[in-house]
Amino acid sequence: MIKVGVLGAAGKVGSEICTAVEAAEGTELVARVGSDDDITDLVTAGAEVVVDFTHPDVVMDNLEFCIDHGIHAVVGTTGFDEGRLAQLRSWLELSPGTGVLIAPNFSIGAILMMRFAAVAAPFYESVEIVELHHPTKADAPSGTARRTAELIAAARREVGSPPMPDATSTALDGARGAVVDGVPVHALRIRGLVAHQEVVLGGPGETLTIRHDSLDRASFAPGVLAGVRAIGQHPGLTVGLEHFLDLD
Amino acid sequence: MIKVGVLGAAGKVGSEICTAVEAAEGTELVARVGSDDDITDLVTAGAEVVVDFTHPDVVMDNLEFCIDHGIHAVVGTTGFDEGRLAQLRSWLELSPGTGVLIAPNFSIGAILMMRFAAVAAPFYESVEIVELHHPTKADAPSGTARRTAELIAAARREVGSPPMPDATSTALDGARGAVVDGVPVHALRIRGLVAHQEVVLGGPGETLTIRHDSLDRASFAPGVLAGVRAIGQHPGLTVGLEHFLDLD
Amino acid sequence: MIKVGVLGAAGKVGSEICTAVEAAEGTELVARVGSDDDITDLVTAGAEVVVDFTHPDVVMDNLEFCIDHGIHAVVGTTGFDEGRLAQLRSWLELSPGTGVLIAPNFSIGAILMMRFAAVAAPFYESVEIVELHHPTKADAPSGTARRTAELIAAARREVGSPPMPDATSTALDGARGAVVDGVPVHALRIRGLVAHQEVVLGGPGETLTIRHDSLDRASFAPGVLAGVRAIGQHPGLTVGLEHFLDLD
Amino acid sequence: MIKVGVLGAAGKVGSEICTAVEAAEGTELVARVGSDDDITDLVTAGAEVVVDFTHPDVVMDNLEFCIDHGIHAVVGTTGFDEGRLAQLRSWLELSPGTGVLIAPNFSIGAILMMRFAAVAAPFYESVEIVELHHPTKADAPSGTARRTAELIAAARREVGSPPMPDATSTALDGARGAVVDGVPVHALRIRGLVAHQEVVLGGPGETLTIRHDSLDRASFAPGVLAGVRAIGQHPGLTVGLEHFLDLD
Repeated sequence: MIKVGVLGAAGKVGSEICTAVEAAEGTELVARVGSDDDITDLVTAGAEVVVDFTHPDVVMDNLEFCIDHGIHAVVGTTGFDEGRLAQLRSWLELSPGTGVLIAPNFSIGAILMMRFAAVAAPFYESVEIVELHHPTKADAPSGTARRTAELIAAARREVGSPPMPDATSTALDGARGAVVDGVPVHALRIRGLVAHQEVVLGGPGETLTIRHDSLDRASFAPGVLAGVRAIGQHPGLTVGLEHFLDLD
Repeated sequence: MIKVGVLGAAGKVGSEICTAVEAAEGTELVARVGSDDDITDLVTAGAEVVVDFTHPDVVMDNLEFCIDHGIHAVVGTTGFDEGRLAQLRSWLELSPGTGVLIAPNFSIGAILMMRFAAVAAPFYESVEIVELHHPTKADAPSGTARRTAELIAAARREVGSPPMPDATSTALDGARGAVVDGVPVHALRIRGLVAHQEVVLGGPGETLTIRHDSLDRASFAPGVLAGVRAIGQHPGLTVGLEHFLDLD
Repeated sequence: MIKVGVLGAAGKVGSEICTAVEAAEGTELVARVGSDDDITDLVTAGAEVVVDFTHPDVVMDNLEFCIDHGIHAVVGTTGFDEGRLAQLRSWLELSPGTGVLIAPNFSIGAILMMRFAAVAAPFYESVEIVELHHPTKADAPSGTARRTAELIAAARREVGSPPMPDATSTALDGARGAVVDGVPVHALRIRGLVAHQEVVLGGPGETLTIRHDSLDRASFAPGVLAGVRAIGQHPGLTVGLEHFLDLD
Repeated sequence: MIKVGVLGAAGKVGSEICTAVEAAEGTELVARVGSDDDITDLVTAGAEVVVDFTHPDVVMDNLEFCIDHGIHAVVGTTGFDEGRLAQLRSWLELSPGTGVLIAPNFSIGAILMMRFAAVAAPFYESVEIVELHHPTKADAPSGTARRTAELIAAARREVGSPPMPDATSTALDGARGAVVDGVPVHALRIRGLVAHQEVVLGGPGETLTIRHDSLDRASFAPGVLAGVRAIGQHPGLTVGLEHFLDLD
């Protein structure tokens, strides 16, 4: 049984994580810490791993406390730049058995989609991305689509892929999408949808399509639990949940 | 048995139509007329219906001959503007039992997709089009995608649909596609594909997707045969195969 | 403004309908009636249309009351057999201006999918249905899939379609799905899904796919509102929301 | 330039391979050997690699000749059982620098689909396979679908996945598909299709779908060329093209 404390337990995401930790096998919820609670509750409760979905303003203080007390941390809070990562590394040097995972994306499906797209890309002449989201989203394309495009582009560069074939000579503005690192990306905004992405790869006579559909925010829970289970065996700083998944 | 003559019989499309007419029930191929052959062969052979997939330069002469001789015509040749259609109508007035079908698209699937998209559009807040073609296509979006967008837009106007919801405030150029008559259209160019289109409609909690995949040029044959079978009962000029299909 | 009362307002579906009626343009929620409330509240509040998502045990009493008082009814409660429909018709004869809509399915997307599948089926050699649901569903295939298969089969019979081509000579049990009225139906049960269905139609060189994705139970609200808005112009008994939608 | 000879060059597949070898960079077609030709032409022409798409009756003689003469072989001919593979290994021991690749499937897309499905399966509660083919196919499900199911089942066993959730209590025969090694497999037979397969994986709130569409038999050419390019660096016997692809 891994003893788990949750920081930001009163928030929407935090409370869903509490539910998931309680329901999962092998994990036990020992502390729910909200913004009005005392972080030392984690120590009193004997938490071995902390999950932090809080706020950029407080996450560094939280992590300093956890590292100081030898508590591993799985972090979904955003806002980590190189400076913050360097700070975390220097703290972790002083607490060599402790592990911290910083993950921008806990959706295992999104991680697998990105990985598979990058592995497949060198085998195909053409690769494009279609992402589909609810119409209240502010940015287009999505961060996941941009990241996928960058990974595809890097994989193509590594094997020296030629530019994709495209004989378009007459086009309406925007018809061929946005180009991210050489990869066309198309963004749909449709009422009723949540968060979806499709990567379409094609070569002579065949196509391969990898599609991820996120229908509910609960989809991050399995990724968080995977992080909680693995962090004890990964001392030091890890950026990206993919490093804990067996993808080979 | 309907006796069918084919004009442009030596061409790629024409020869496939000959094969289809021979294979189909209820039709008999009585004349294959190429550019070096004499069009009067149609009369000698007793053709009741002619299929014309020739060239804009010769199609008007072909049709004048057919109408003069009371032979119905099913026409896939392009280049018909208002002037040509008016000319056809005046010829047909002098041969009141004869029918001519001018159809820009003989794919029944494409016709059904456009029709269903237009019927469904008024019931949904969001509608977007994704078309996917081989990378040697010159125009983007495709003519079918543009036409679909226009039909959707007309259907939405008729019921007074409000603008589609879209909160995008930060976007890369092209990410949200080309806008045709208010409808976003996205064009993918992927090696291995032929001609494909998807219309995605969405409202609260649900989406409806209508997809047409054309995998082989043989796909126009059923539409041509439907035209051949129906033209005898439709004297005068008809533009668009959809008028011969029972779509209600 | 149509004045609307909701019967079963305390239930899960009923309360979502209350929210939808309040949010919609042209409708006003004037009465929420739960199982402990007095149905005469509807009259006091001046309800013109009632929405009934209650229980087969009480719905007939509810409808007798509504018809007696000249209140139109839009009914999603199940359990209507021929006897109950006949009873409703005889009550409605005594209240000639009143309308009752009994609808087994208020999802406009599901209705459109079924309609389009039936319209398209006669044009294709092959038609199969794939339905995908959450794994806690008890029946396979779904009621919607069975109904879709029946509508497709009827449309094919009407035009004399030959049996579908299928050269399968060696098959594992179940590989080719369940056969409903001659139409193969395949049921997937996948964690994370809600309710989805795809109808795949194919002819020489092309396929047409019609897919409905229901991602949230909110998807019945637009259909209920369409019923509420139309019922005043449809006195008598109507079975099936499709009769109120402009589908031609 | 790799000098390539093609055995079975007069056949449908063989002649397409000749075309592909001629068109590709880095390969040169030096011998086309049909069933009436002399296999010693390969030696005269200086072939370094042979591609064999012939017949189970002649392939062993072909390979004995190639191995004897130190010519590498890339083999798509079927019918290799353990006895034949053992025979090949013993011949190859006597010609230690020579490589033979026996591959049941040269479609890179099919290989990637199978690989990705197996990698992803341990992360999901539910996995099912839908394969779609032309209606003249004799077996259901396809060999690729069966193989995919076996790979998924093996990956799930390795991590101790529990049985998939499925609350179905009332089902029509066949509705839930064929069960291959615990994995439901559904086979559609649709006119107009070629060879297609979709693997649907689902967990709480999300699904991942991997789809392979083979639209043209030309789709095996890139896989054959990948084999031709790699075989020189892989002496001995290799079974399965996946061993030559960089999939990690």
